[in-house]
Amino acid sequence: MSSPQSSKALSSKALSSKALSSKALSSKALSSKALSFQVQATCGPARSGRLMTPHGPVRTPAFMPVGTYGTVKGMTPEDLRGLGTDIVLANAYHLWVRPGHRQIEELGGLHTFMGWDGPILTDSGGYQVFSMRDVNKVTELGVRFRAPLDGLHRMLTPEICVEIQEALGVDLAMAFDECIEWPAERDRVARSTERTTRWLHRCLAARRRPERTALLGIVQGGLYPDLRVAHAQELAALDMDAYAIGGLSVGEPRDELLGMVETTIPHLPVGRIRYLMGVGFPLDIVDAVTRGVDLFDCVLPTRSARFGQVFTVLGRMNIKHARLRDDRRPLDPACACYTCRSFSRAYLRHLFLSNEILAPRLLTLHNLTFYQRLMARLQDAIPAGPAALDDLRVEAQSWMERNED
Amino acid sequence: MSSPQSSKALSSKALSSKALSSKALSSKALSSKALSFQVQATCGPARSGRLMTPHGPVRTPAFMPVGTYGTVKGMTPEDLRGLGTDIVLANAYHLWVRPGHRQIEELGGLHTFMGWDGPILTDSGGYQVFSMRDVNKVTELGVRFRAPLDGLHRMLTPEICVEIQEALGVDLAMAFDECIEWPAERDRVARSTERTTRWLHRCLAARRRPERTALLGIVQGGLYPDLRVAHAQELAALDMDAYAIGGLSVGEPRDELLGMVETTIPHLPVGRIRYLMGVGFPLDIVDAVTRGVDLFDCVLPTRSARFGQVFTVLGRMNIKHARLRDDRRPLDPACACYTCRSFSRAYLRHLFLSNEILAPRLLTLHNLTFYQRLMARLQDAIPAGPAALDDLRVEAQSWMERNED
Repeated sequence: MSSPQSSKALSSKALSSKALSSKALSSKALSSKALSFQVQATCGPARSGRLMTPHGPVRTPAFMPVGTYGTVKGMTPEDLRGLGTDIVLANAYHLWVRPGHRQIEELGGLHTFMGWDGPILTDSGGYQVFSMRDVNKVTELGVRFRAPLDGLHRMLTPEICVEIQEALGVDLAMAFDECIEWPAERDRVARSTERTTRWLHRCLAARRRPERTALLGIVQGGLYPDLRVAHAQELAALDMDAYAIGGLSVGEPRDELLGMVETTIPHLPVGRIRYLMGVGFPLDIVDAVTRGVDLFDCVLPTRSARFGQVFTVLGRMNIKHARLRDDRRPLDPACACYTCRSFSRAYLRHLFLSNEILAPRLLTLHNLTFYQRLMARLQDAIPAGPAALDDLRVEAQSWMERNED
Repeated sequence: MSSPQSSKALSSKALSSKALSSKALSSKALSSKALSFQVQATCGPARSGRLMTPHGPVRTPAFMPVGTYGTVKGMTPEDLRGLGTDIVLANAYHLWVRPGHRQIEELGGLHTFMGWDGPILTDSGGYQVFSMRDVNKVTELGVRFRAPLDGLHRMLTPEICVEIQEALGVDLAMAFDECIEWPAERDRVARSTERTTRWLHRCLAARRRPERTALLGIVQGGLYPDLRVAHAQELAALDMDAYAIGGLSVGEPRDELLGMVETTIPHLPVGRIRYLMGVGFPLDIVDAVTRGVDLFDCVLPTRSARFGQVFTVLGRMNIKHARLRDDRRPLDPACACYTCRSFSRAYLRHLFLSNEILAPRLLTLHNLTFYQRLMARLQDAIPAGPAALDDLRVEAQSWMERNED
């Protein structure tokens, strides 16, 4: 592996063999950028560290709760802080359609708007374009689409995408990429990846506030290792603020996803964070961290909660289950969240079956606590060494096989 | 007025003319009962005081947030305490249908079930019977009905009603009464009131835990003053733990409601609390307190919140209003609740229009804070004297005429 950032950061090989003093990787060269990232410990390719953003630090590996419309459904900023959240994710596309990025800008930016004073990352809308690809028209200029919400025709381009995210004033903005279906022919993937690169150049050229809003390049290349490597190297050469691994978690087998992460990571600079978009289950997160990923987002803990699926140390549990009717235990015996401290499974089941909005609120609080506890344990396991990481993996593996139902 | 409780309590006349020492009305004679009530100050018929229950004190005049299914929609017990709630209301009928009173009893009672360690009052189901009167069959035995939830036929009787509420272990249980429509002929009201009395005797006979669960008698009599007076006297002679004024707030003119309160109150013992069921707007509460009512419940602050209606010192406000699109002010400049401390009207409007569950949560928190602040001000105004109460009335009156929309 040859790092295009070798003058600024140690090679991945060097990292894998020793613990690091906290100063070794401080990214002084990044002081003019929105982000700086300091690796604090490594264990093989896995690293724990601290990402500094204009709105404070993020302990990594980190999980971002999904707050698409400028709210993590049912949670206040106070709740999020209380359960150990450092950074949240919102969606540029959705906030553009409603209430509009200019309106949020006039109201003081997204942080002020949603009352969250910590770091925010916005997804660009690339995935929304992907998920509505049947009705959208993709051209070299960008994507023309009709938002279901208001029926208006809009054009999303790399330039508009950067404009939106800078107006929102987020700490981390995603480049506008083309996210295609899986499976896809090599030729289609190659052409799409090239377009993503051209769009990235347009994103870079469109930036007006690079010191306030970082731009993440997104590595594409489908499941073709050579395309992934080439794209990662291409992006690394652009010295992006940070890197995302995109186009995965779209239905491909789990092994293929992890294989692509393994293929991609060595070609990304060590001194920048790596974000694996849309992943995933606890085991996916542990496996990706082990391969060198720093940042995650996923709707699983929040969306599952709204559907009555609870994450506990004993496995997944459906709160609607008749078996819980008289169960006076907390959701999770290992959890110290407000929900587990205060309420029985029987009561939470009653709330859920009665369609009470307190149910999704309390289950979301719990599921997010479960995820943030996993991240805290990963942060501790990395400096503790390979055995600690292995233990976490064994636990996550056996967790996937268990189901309280 | 002649009080049937004259040996235990001062007459209303005596109360109206002077402030009381805190010992003057301590209800030692009630020590074997679930409740004791101490009037701490009076101002005309208005009184402020402290109701002692098996689950702690209630400062009066008090407002009970409505938590029909064992949850004040969207609020945790922690939220409720934080905004100054002393007591909550739940519904025996609804909890009987789901999840069942025996199940709640086995889980440790309603307090444990819902995680609320303060006092609870349950409505009996009389009003539910009333609101479904077209499909229910009312006989002397009780009411036979089919619950929409499960389609099962059930029979609600005074005995079952007491059994349910004692199994729930609530502090204050309502007698099972017949609540009829307005307007109604005098003869129909008279017959119904007599049935309510017979049912009350059956409720009294059915009690098994009077030291743990107080029973409130409900004064009926429609809008016929002589029927009201007679029924109040009849109930007072039974030395109930506390008294409710029922059968009002069912569509009759406001003046008629207040007239009935004025007619009824002098015939209730001074040393027991008086609860005006289902009332109301701030002005209704001020007017009823002025006439000697101590306890209130109403869905207005909670239900309005879910429909986007906000209570502010400047009047009622519809959060959906386009005018609020760019409004960076808090909902209510005079409010110190978490919602007002943390979020703009523009953001709350965005949440509401996006169908985010954080919206009803935050608006409910605010509206309940508005109501509890009103109650706290009433508690302070009564010892302060007539001018303070008048000021509150003028404010509430002018509030009713204002509308931020």
